[in-house]
Amino acid sequence: MTQTNRLNATFAALADPTRRAILARLARGEAGVLELAKPFSMSQPAISKHLLVLERAGLISRSRDRQRRPRRLAPKPLAEANGWLERYREFWEGNFQRLDALLDEMKFQEKTRKRHKR
Amino acid sequence: MTQTNRLNATFAALADPTRRAILARLARGEAGVLELAKPFSMSQPAISKHLLVLERAGLISRSRDRQRRPRRLAPKPLAEANGWLERYREFWEGNFQRLDALLDEMKFQEKTRKRHKR
Repeated sequence: MTQTNRLNATFAALADPTRRAILARLARGEAGVLELAKPFSMSQPAISKHLLVLERAGLISRSRDRQRRPRRLAPKPLAEANGWLERYREFWEGNFQRLDALLDEMKFQEKTRKRHKR
Repeated sequence: MTQTNRLNATFAALADPTRRAILARLARGEAGVLELAKPFSMSQPAISKHLLVLERAGLISRSRDRQRRPRRLAPKPLAEANGWLERYREFWEGNFQRLDALLDEMKFQEKTRKRHKR
């Protein structure tokens, strides 16, 4: 897979709340399909389909235990997606900084207004 | 929109390479539809469709200039997506650290092996 295709697959996999919840569960340790299905009112095939999407995106892997085949978090694609987003950090931080400056300016004007009232 | 729906929309919007390229272009400054369409061998309606997805996800906004209606980057959803990914930072960094430790161990064994050969 090229980096472009990996990013496509990772972001598409993350666009679903059930799949994000599965990753959150696996962050606490590996788990089998039955255990992963438990918190959701979903059939096991529906969960297996979500697991397949996560597996194809490289976000989870299967452990060696042949019987349970527990899934575990494979965090590398998350690092790559994070790397893509980090390029834009200056934009959102810049925006928040501008907002902070605006709030400071408003507070200053409020103070000045009150002082003039006295 | 709830935070869950916002994350769904943001990750879905980022799952397409054309949309990611449009955001990368807008990071260099606002631009109109014609200019945004130029680097892609795509019809203007196809580009407009991508812009609509980005707009619905809150990733771009339109400037006030009524005639050109240039689009600009709205980075807040990127910050939110980044925040979600950051929770997993310890996992990918942990993994790389474990890999580093493994490589150190291999180098040490290699040295020891060479020393015993002498």
